Amino acid sequence: MANSKFEYVRLFEQQDGLLPNTWIVVRIDGRGFTKFATRYGFEKPNDKRALDLMNAAAKMVMTELSDITIAYGSSDEFSFVFHKSCILFERRASKLVSTIVSTFTAYYIHYWPTYFPDTLLTPPLPSFDGRAICYPSVQNLRDYMSWRQVDCHINNLYNTTFWSLIQLGGLDAKEAEKTLAGTLAADKNEILFSRFKINYNNEPEMFKKGSVLFRDYELVEPGTHNAAEEAENLAIPVQQSKTQAENDKKKRAKARVTVEHLDIIKDDFWDRRPWLLSNKPGKVPKQT
Amino acid sequence: MANSKFEYVRLFEQQDGLLPNTWIVVRIDGRGFTKFATRYGFEKPNDKRALDLMNAAAKMVMTELSDITIAYGSSDEFSFVFHKSCILFERRASKLVSTIVSTFTAYYIHYWPTYFPDTLLTPPLPSFDGRAICYPSVQNLRDYMSWRQVDCHINNLYNTTFWSLIQLGGLDAKEAEKTLAGTLAADKNEILFSRFKINYNNEPEMFKKGSVLFRDYELVEPGTHNAAEEAENLAIPVQQSKTQAENDKKKRAKARVTVEHLDIIKDDFWDRRPWLLSNKPGKVPKQT
Amino acid sequence: MANSKFEYVRLFEQQDGLLPNTWIVVRIDGRGFTKFATRYGFEKPNDKRALDLMNAAAKMVMTELSDITIAYGSSDEFSFVFHKSCILFERRASKLVSTIVSTFTAYYIHYWPTYFPDTLLTPPLPSFDGRAICYPSVQNLRDYMSWRQVDCHINNLYNTTFWSLIQLGGLDAKEAEKTLAGTLAADKNEILFSRFKINYNNEPEMFKKGSVLFRDYELVEPGTHNAAEEAENLAIPVQQSKTQAENDKKKRAKARVTVEHLDIIKDDFWDRRPWLLSNKPGKVPKQT
Amino acid sequence: MANSKFEYVRLFEQQDGLLPNTWIVVRIDGRGFTKFATRYGFEKPNDKRALDLMNAAAKMVMTELSDITIAYGSSDEFSFVFHKSCILFERRASKLVSTIVSTFTAYYIHYWPTYFPDTLLTPPLPSFDGRAICYPSVQNLRDYMSWRQVDCHINNLYNTTFWSLIQLGGLDAKEAEKTLAGTLAADKNEILFSRFKINYNNEPEMFKKGSVLFRDYELVEPGTHNAAEEAENLAIPVQQSKTQAENDKKKRAKARVTVEHLDIIKDDFWDRRPWLLSNKPGKVPKQT
Repeated sequence: MANSKFEYVRLFEQQDGLLPNTWIVVRIDGRGFTKFATRYGFEKPNDKRALDLMNAAAKMVMTELSDITIAYGSSDEFSFVFHKSCILFERRASKLVSTIVSTFTAYYIHYWPTYFPDTLLTPPLPSFDGRAICYPSVQNLRDYMSWRQVDCHINNLYNTTFWSLIQLGGLDAKEAEKTLAGTLAADKNEILFSRFKINYNNEPEMFKKGSVLFRDYELVEPGTHNAAEEAENLAIPVQQSKTQAENDKKKRAKARVTVEHLDIIKDDFWDRRPWLLSNKPGKVPKQT
Repeated sequence: MANSKFEYVRLFEQQDGLLPNTWIVVRIDGRGFTKFATRYGFEKPNDKRALDLMNAAAKMVMTELSDITIAYGSSDEFSFVFHKSCILFERRASKLVSTIVSTFTAYYIHYWPTYFPDTLLTPPLPSFDGRAICYPSVQNLRDYMSWRQVDCHINNLYNTTFWSLIQLGGLDAKEAEKTLAGTLAADKNEILFSRFKINYNNEPEMFKKGSVLFRDYELVEPGTHNAAEEAENLAIPVQQSKTQAENDKKKRAKARVTVEHLDIIKDDFWDRRPWLLSNKPGKVPKQT
Repeated sequence: MANSKFEYVRLFEQQDGLLPNTWIVVRIDGRGFTKFATRYGFEKPNDKRALDLMNAAAKMVMTELSDITIAYGSSDEFSFVFHKSCILFERRASKLVSTIVSTFTAYYIHYWPTYFPDTLLTPPLPSFDGRAICYPSVQNLRDYMSWRQVDCHINNLYNTTFWSLIQLGGLDAKEAEKTLAGTLAADKNEILFSRFKINYNNEPEMFKKGSVLFRDYELVEPGTHNAAEEAENLAIPVQQSKTQAENDKKKRAKARVTVEHLDIIKDDFWDRRPWLLSNKPGKVPKQT
Repeated sequence: MANSKFEYVRLFEQQDGLLPNTWIVVRIDGRGFTKFATRYGFEKPNDKRALDLMNAAAKMVMTELSDITIAYGSSDEFSFVFHKSCILFERRASKLVSTIVSTFTAYYIHYWPTYFPDTLLTPPLPSFDGRAICYPSVQNLRDYMSWRQVDCHINNLYNTTFWSLIQLGGLDAKEAEKTLAGTLAADKNEILFSRFKINYNNEPEMFKKGSVLFRDYELVEPGTHNAAEEAENLAIPVQQSKTQAENDKKKRAKARVTVEHLDIIKDDFWDRRPWLLSNKPGKVPKQT
């Protein structure tokens, strides 16, 4: 009542609901992480502690937001995927992005001492920005994921060679950059092997492939499911009964989120994990 | 190159630049803070430590983002105002919102032990969501700020009476709610005074007025500046020379951010602080 | 140059490109057509001349904009569908909507004398508004088309019965409305038949099914093509070579646009006309 | 009922309400008018009949949509301005743009025979596209209007000289273009005068200044009103009582729309016509 004179300002809020029946990707990126990495002495070209911390934060994001079906991260970025049938927060972009960014940041700060026990975090603190993108088809979504993983590979091969030239070859940054200018992947592999006896294939999977997070159910035989087609045929935002949806949500919430370093470009990864595209919880693996 | 096959997915990113020459408000809200407050035993109706922590986090947001001219917070929410001429991040909504939400969250987690030294923060961690709203005129912006401060007052008067009835009057929540149903402000003041000898006017300013954060320059005499009109007459997103803009930015970055509990509804607050609307740095007060 | 001082105002234009890889439907509606129909003495419940005029205008829209694959109209509305791979006008919503609305209106006015030779059109002239909607999947698109055709059927059955009660049964509007309140389709069929010896099934197809417009190629055997799946698998906005795209465009531009009154809800319609979903021109039928 | 299975498709319609309290400009442009002008033998550099037809169509748009306060046109484009307090169609962009484009097109086709009595219009018919842009301040709006009028002047001076070189000077298009390359306004004036005895200042006002349309009230003395400031101080989308708003609307609807060729860049035009910015109907001039 007393409030009504000013309350008209609410009319200025604009709708930002994302198109229904599309896959939502929220990608977050570290802000000014080059400087941040230098300040805290991150190892080059990859700091395992820093990547583990990213993964730990991402895992908690997936645990708290059970509508996320898969996440992929490398370096200082992470992509979180909401299933196309997701109606969380009425699909409002700002709500989805801000919630993920905030939750991720909270755990990044919280877990810092676990991964960097000897280094106190002081202002300016690390932070992340984010954006939401809609993908209409499974192919678009998989191409997005492939894009990020190819990018991880390209950057890592470059950085591995670059830092080898500096750390092992004694070059300075400019010389290393010049050496790599115009080189193809094969050239970089060759430099690594001939100069430093480094076989790039033997580099850690986490560095080469990045990290993929998903709920851990029993793998299925490829060819036994058709989750992609099933997903494409899903037309209506919510088709399930409320009970079914609630049950599925509970099952997802219970499932363990696992962190792997697998190829997500080839079909096999998706064929064996139909729940990623179908959004139907799989079979919980027996505890051993 | 190798990347190009998948790179088309970038075309799906949609523009979200906010309308130029409008005031941008980013409001963030605690997610599930009622539950969170209970879990960590926040004092009712107001927990000074929790509010101080909010203010400390907001202060760091303002310090790191010098384009913010003023911020206002109460309870578990905070509003940050970017000047209408601001071109930070090309005014992209998702970038502005996610950066503020992430920075705020980082400091909230980081400073938790300072304000709650005896309470360990454990998952699920507190987090915030956010949204951006554009206001075309100074009046709209001031009405927005007034709306939040009136809201703070209404809620605080209600909560103060509600919790007095419970903590001092021995009522349970239902009884207290029933007692307050349909009461006006005067009735609540009366209940507080007649039953509990509480004069609401003597309650702490932070609880009654919320917290307003701004850069601390020397106050001016009301009537000597005309910042509101000046702001309205600003038509072009960037009018300053680059050098001037850089200088102003540096000055703003240097200025101390202060936390006050003032009336921001009346003209006086704005008249004495022309830099809030003009975006021109004021005179730095002498250190005493 | 001389212009530059004011040219900054261009920065206020906001992007409105529609999400790639989705079907775009532009639906236009007559503005105030109830009043307009009365003023020009349109026959009730359907005026064949008015519908033929709508169809003639829609046909010209499809002829001029060869990116439209199918259109559907009934009463005073028309829906135009752009293939999901369409990149016309960079998919800008305002450009797509305004071009269709303008072209449609131009022909509606222009052809008026052909369909209403005895009635001079005078101000206020008929006009249309429009909007664009994106549908991510073939199923969504077909459900949209089905929605409009079911709507046509429901309205037409109601109107046919309503106007029979008035024109043949001597009721006034209020009595007719009351008679129909709460009736199901079967009831309306029964009223038509028992009171007026009208078998609704024998009503003109144009009235019962609306009008569907598409380019006229040779029908194929159902089961021989899989256009829907093909369309779903299309992921990239433009996959064709420029030459191929140009060739297809020319073929489409040459094809005759036909106006039919068919069931577009069942699969058969789509199975026999794979070009509607695949966007690949079919075989031009032999002239007889 | 029967309809419900498909009706979910309505959820895909996205909101496109324009920011409240901003001036809305809808600009429409002729599609392919260079070709169209050639086909119908428009006189070069300006065809008075074609411009009069544009103005006649624009006048009817303003007459039918009384929320438009001012319109400005030149060549094959027209800009229509809705007052910042306008709430027509809930400020939905697609509805505003499509309605204006459709109404304009209807009258353009309808009035064609009046202005081109000897030329039959045949397909492809002329059509227009449109877009909506929001301007937060009076200054932004006036700068937009100035931008269009400066543009009109620049183009007209160029075209007048270009066509003089061809029509009077016997040059071909390439030679004329070459002659004008790099010339300033003064140079073009000089060419016109020294070669063809044309004093550009004596060219028709409609060609030099374009056409401005507004409701015709009695001019006021500059300095007696402060409509710009009044407009800036308007903060709430609808402040008037419904009765007052209805009355004003009726008054506006009754006022005669006039077509002038005035300078709209200088203050004088706006100072003498406070109703353009205040949206308060002026005094209807006495009929003489």
